[in-house]
Amino acid sequence: MEKTSTLTKVQKEVFMNEAILEARKAQMLQEVPIGAIVVLDGQIIGRGHNLRETTQDATMHAEMIAIKEACQRVGSWRLEQAQLFVTLEPCPMCAGASMLARIDEIYFGAFDPKGGASGSLLNLSTDERFNHWSYVEAGVLGETCGALLTDFFRELRQRKKKLKKTSNSPELPL
Amino acid sequence: MEKTSTLTKVQKEVFMNEAILEARKAQMLQEVPIGAIVVLDGQIIGRGHNLRETTQDATMHAEMIAIKEACQRVGSWRLEQAQLFVTLEPCPMCAGASMLARIDEIYFGAFDPKGGASGSLLNLSTDERFNHWSYVEAGVLGETCGALLTDFFRELRQRKKKLKKTSNSPELPL
Repeated sequence: MEKTSTLTKVQKEVFMNEAILEARKAQMLQEVPIGAIVVLDGQIIGRGHNLRETTQDATMHAEMIAIKEACQRVGSWRLEQAQLFVTLEPCPMCAGASMLARIDEIYFGAFDPKGGASGSLLNLSTDERFNHWSYVEAGVLGETCGALLTDFFRELRQRKKKLKKTSNSPELPL
Repeated sequence: MEKTSTLTKVQKEVFMNEAILEARKAQMLQEVPIGAIVVLDGQIIGRGHNLRETTQDATMHAEMIAIKEACQRVGSWRLEQAQLFVTLEPCPMCAGASMLARIDEIYFGAFDPKGGASGSLLNLSTDERFNHWSYVEAGVLGETCGALLTDFFRELRQRKKKLKKTSNSPELPL
């Protein structure tokens, strides 16, 4: 059974902007800037941003934090009729968590060609062999979401290059 | 590059028995009995049992709890050279989390033909398109692990049947 979107273009952009706000919070912590929110009945019920380095916990992806908060908020592990907004295509863990929480609609910004599991390397979110599947829409504010990441990695490379140059400089103490 | 096991048969069974102990803790809470542990250098560094109903959190699978504890214990999101033992084949979320945590070896007891992502419906753990893959071994104490689940669901069906019978009985008050 094909699932459809229940949101307008404006709603999608408003909510993706909230996920982008979350991504910026990650960026401020020097984390890879990825943000997510969970929406139910037009209300944001969960927010999260990537905290892998800060917490040194491999599972602390934006989507996981947002989904956990949403479950806590509604007092149920079932988030039927909820929407997940995330700036980057979910990885297998996050696409899997979204499936387990029965999230009905997934909107993401940029594709992740190296690790995406909602369309790029595989599509867990629409695989009908599992007991739940979702409507998936890619590219919502995709350019903004993608630019956040490319800018972050460009700056990271520049910092590393500068650091290497400084540490190789003979006139500076070790 | 093919990965290999670093453990003996006895070690595998000893550790799977610890995962089974965790599954029994879930069972005592009326949760689906699934348990997991994470091992590093012969030491258990993370333990977990399914707590989905107790916490009403869709992400609270045994493996996730064990992986989070292991990350906390070693102070790093990288669990290279670690082993994951779990009584049931990991779902996409848990196979994905194991991949993100760079766990090198996955041992599971029973197959999950309806939702397994380490061999049944797909195999995320050995998919070389991702940036990490693992050695996967199925069927470690598989019968015991499987029996835990079949016994649990049989008892659940019987309880439901009994409850239905009782609530339909005219001589009893509503």
